[in-house]
Amino acid sequence: MSFLRGIAASNGIAIAKAYRLVEPDFSFDKKTVDSPETEVARFQDALSTAKGELEQIRDRAEKELGADKAAIFEAHLLVLSDPELISPIEDKIKSEKVNAELALKEIADMFVSMFESMDNEYMKERAADIRDVTKRVLAHLLGIQIPNPSMVQEEVIIVAEDLTPSDTAQLNRKYVLGFTTDIGGRTSHSAIMARSMEIPAVVGTKNATAEITNGDLVVIDGLNGEVHINPTPERLDEYKKQQEDFAKQKAEWAKLVHEKTITADQHHVELAANIGTPKDLKGVVENGGEAVGLYRTEFLYMDRDQLPTEEEQFTAYKAVLEGMEGKPVVVRTLDIGGDKELPYLNLPKEMNPFLGFRAIRLCLEEQDIFRTQLRALLRASVYGNLKVMFPMIATLAEFREAKAILEEEKQKLDSEGIEVAEKIELGIMVEIPSTAIIADQFAKEVDFFSIGTNDLIQYTMAADRMNQQVSYLYQPYNPSILRLVKMVIDAAHKEGKWAGMCGEMAGDEIAIPILLGLGLDEFSMSASSILKARSQIRGLTKADMEDLASRVLDMGTTEEVIEAVKSVTSL
Amino acid sequence: MSFLRGIAASNGIAIAKAYRLVEPDFSFDKKTVDSPETEVARFQDALSTAKGELEQIRDRAEKELGADKAAIFEAHLLVLSDPELISPIEDKIKSEKVNAELALKEIADMFVSMFESMDNEYMKERAADIRDVTKRVLAHLLGIQIPNPSMVQEEVIIVAEDLTPSDTAQLNRKYVLGFTTDIGGRTSHSAIMARSMEIPAVVGTKNATAEITNGDLVVIDGLNGEVHINPTPERLDEYKKQQEDFAKQKAEWAKLVHEKTITADQHHVELAANIGTPKDLKGVVENGGEAVGLYRTEFLYMDRDQLPTEEEQFTAYKAVLEGMEGKPVVVRTLDIGGDKELPYLNLPKEMNPFLGFRAIRLCLEEQDIFRTQLRALLRASVYGNLKVMFPMIATLAEFREAKAILEEEKQKLDSEGIEVAEKIELGIMVEIPSTAIIADQFAKEVDFFSIGTNDLIQYTMAADRMNQQVSYLYQPYNPSILRLVKMVIDAAHKEGKWAGMCGEMAGDEIAIPILLGLGLDEFSMSASSILKARSQIRGLTKADMEDLASRVLDMGTTEEVIEAVKSVTSL
Repeated sequence: MSFLRGIAASNGIAIAKAYRLVEPDFSFDKKTVDSPETEVARFQDALSTAKGELEQIRDRAEKELGADKAAIFEAHLLVLSDPELISPIEDKIKSEKVNAELALKEIADMFVSMFESMDNEYMKERAADIRDVTKRVLAHLLGIQIPNPSMVQEEVIIVAEDLTPSDTAQLNRKYVLGFTTDIGGRTSHSAIMARSMEIPAVVGTKNATAEITNGDLVVIDGLNGEVHINPTPERLDEYKKQQEDFAKQKAEWAKLVHEKTITADQHHVELAANIGTPKDLKGVVENGGEAVGLYRTEFLYMDRDQLPTEEEQFTAYKAVLEGMEGKPVVVRTLDIGGDKELPYLNLPKEMNPFLGFRAIRLCLEEQDIFRTQLRALLRASVYGNLKVMFPMIATLAEFREAKAILEEEKQKLDSEGIEVAEKIELGIMVEIPSTAIIADQFAKEVDFFSIGTNDLIQYTMAADRMNQQVSYLYQPYNPSILRLVKMVIDAAHKEGKWAGMCGEMAGDEIAIPILLGLGLDEFSMSASSILKARSQIRGLTKADMEDLASRVLDMGTTEEVIEAVKSVTSL
Repeated sequence: MSFLRGIAASNGIAIAKAYRLVEPDFSFDKKTVDSPETEVARFQDALSTAKGELEQIRDRAEKELGADKAAIFEAHLLVLSDPELISPIEDKIKSEKVNAELALKEIADMFVSMFESMDNEYMKERAADIRDVTKRVLAHLLGIQIPNPSMVQEEVIIVAEDLTPSDTAQLNRKYVLGFTTDIGGRTSHSAIMARSMEIPAVVGTKNATAEITNGDLVVIDGLNGEVHINPTPERLDEYKKQQEDFAKQKAEWAKLVHEKTITADQHHVELAANIGTPKDLKGVVENGGEAVGLYRTEFLYMDRDQLPTEEEQFTAYKAVLEGMEGKPVVVRTLDIGGDKELPYLNLPKEMNPFLGFRAIRLCLEEQDIFRTQLRALLRASVYGNLKVMFPMIATLAEFREAKAILEEEKQKLDSEGIEVAEKIELGIMVEIPSTAIIADQFAKEVDFFSIGTNDLIQYTMAADRMNQQVSYLYQPYNPSILRLVKMVIDAAHKEGKWAGMCGEMAGDEIAIPILLGLGLDEFSMSASSILKARSQIRGLTKADMEDLASRVLDMGTTEEVIEAVKSVTSL
């Protein structure tokens, strides 16, 4: 039995067999072979096994995901039957007496770089296909297995170095009970995804992939941030008990699903949910979300090879607005760049992507992308209560420019006779220090603020939230952060506007009492955190929290702040 | 004649022939040769030309730089005479009938990767030697020239993509009249270096290296940020006239060298200089610097292959303290990481180095490095007026820890009977938003603040100052920055401490009136900017600038602030 400690990224306890989602080691040595004929036969064997496997995957994908998703595997099969690729490999084995691995790799690399160098999207896709299928054949030659999580047919715990958006898109949610990763923190993509899937997760364990083998029995303790590998039967029973207790607690919270979020002294705040796709709405409704406080539209743009059309976007936005039945839906315009790349945009590599060309900066430059999204949003606005917000606004000039573009598109739609909602609130994310510091200036022009603490904290502390070596500086309760939050809320209220928060901090039990005291109007969080937050808020009074907030603003360190919160709450 | 526009990085006009410091294109195709013998002869030719060249460089280096600097070229010559390297190349040409370029490259690469893979510093240096000399031979085979700025024997303008610290270390300062680069901004290394060398420079031209050929007559207009290539004789005369005017203006300013820096209404501020090495002291004295406001100690650690010893550091610190004859010298402890790498520390690659493991973060972790520097500083403290400051402080906890380490080292020296100055002021750089926002908390514990605007601006605006695509966000006069500066100054004064500024902004003519109004006590800048700043300050009144400052703090944009400054000054 062994034990790993990490960061509790999503609540609950999960118990299942481990499934490693780890890129295998494809390295090999160049060898001279005595019998090239035997080597060619070995190559043909690997080739036909790979083909058989691909056919199986294609058939299953067709059944479960539809013909369009299966098409990619059809393309891969064609590559493996192409004599222009296969013959040179066999020739190379024969003429140079080298091992099949080397011949395969060198010929494939040649084609890949040839196709990639062409300025043609179709050819670039061919290069990607060749790279993919070559790996599959190479795996068979080397006798190693490529993980394929979409084909999992039993309950598993996913073990990975990290989970990218495209990894999680591949997961068969029916069978994934939880996951654990080597890297990442509470705000990494994998952590956010776990909360949206409502499955337990522990991230940042440093060596989950080194310690856990396929088939190990793994317990993910998302309450305490621990991972147990092959626990004793006694320990396992304890976990099952904890699992039950957690289920009971959740049932208790579930009673609050139709209740308002009101403090003990009758102050109402709004508990909203962060979502990534229309599919996430189910969780919002089940958890009693009073609004969507952040709809991250970038998922519409990811895991594909071209931009989504206006029509595709319109359909998604309409679905979310209709699904919320008139409750507010705050849609954030495209926030790409930073740690979220779109390969098909061919953006230049940056030395510091978090301080780079991303979000609104990119949208103001690549206006076609931006205008298409705004049109889709405006057209969808008549189906519900839409509010639009721009990410990464650093200056008033940026906000004014973005707003002017929105107005232009609205007028175009008007003149085309297309209906647009009469009043659409227009706000900004406050996630850059400059914007928080002059929030009073912004408050005269925006309809609302939504504080994005994940980025605001990393910029204010100058510490990359994905970088383990400086993770001690990611301090949500640092008095400097709390003062910025206060500046934003006060600025909004002075102009009669509202202020929300859509970063991880909004659902954090230590932060909630302070935010309540500072006067935050809207708390937007993972849907799975809403009921717990509602339960907590109903036990607090606004008056006491105001007193707490004014005291912590004058403190010097995070530690003092945590101490103060604990001393006046039951935490 | 053609014309480039860039960023004015260092004042003045320079006129000379272009010298391109650009890595040549070493690419070539694999070829089959008909006569391997002729090819071997071609290889031997290139080899002996390279040797002749190296002998010349060695002799000159010995004469001008001393035997130890020449030793590297001796090592290179040995490599070129090593039959273990040369024979396999000739064999490959003969047996495989390939061109000399290919044979040279492949054999050399093999040795390089062999030596590099050994866990042995000596062998790794051999790998670097082989890589260097192979390039030289390859250049001769390909008929291209490798630039060698240290051997320049006539006045030149350096044209480069960018200049790294090691590039600038190689420049023969006697002959370099100015330079221009494709990338970089006012705060990039090359710009800072130009100001410290007091030569005109224009950076960020985007395509200087594409437009300028070796030998072109180039005018660097560092006053307006322009570069003219092969101007007409009439235009050239105009530039010469401007050059004279600038010299006259400088002569005018020079009269202020022994004057105090006092406003028209008798308020005194301190004008200090930023320096990188003891050699820079000459410029400080000549320009009437009242103090050293920032001694960047990292240059002691750069362009070498191991850490500087305590003794080496002691010698440098003592030289600076003695050179300033009792005037204040603010030494910043090691600020490495970010864009300043030390290869021999083998730090991990980071996704966002500007938000990463650098400066005090690294020093608190790698305490041996930090303690050695502190001991050297403490020992030197008796030779002048030393003040120590820590870079990149984000939390009170970091400051307290760094201070405790300093105290420990002081006590150790005490117990060893080594004398240390009784009072050494201990301060921090304020370059992270969090620190500015809770400056009131820090002010209770530090002796002084020095605002590092280069970083403070990039974090507050969340924009990498080296990234061209977001350079529009690098806004020193953004009201958010000005408010942070005010917080820091007010916090210091409330506790009876002083506040300085050592970023580029301190020497900026638009910023100076505002900073004066905000009550900044010390302005630290490139020595070459001091006299101009003194002249400007003597023409302003503190009262008017206070009025200006209070107005700009309530503005929304950079543009309004600039407008306001211009309306009350003669700018």
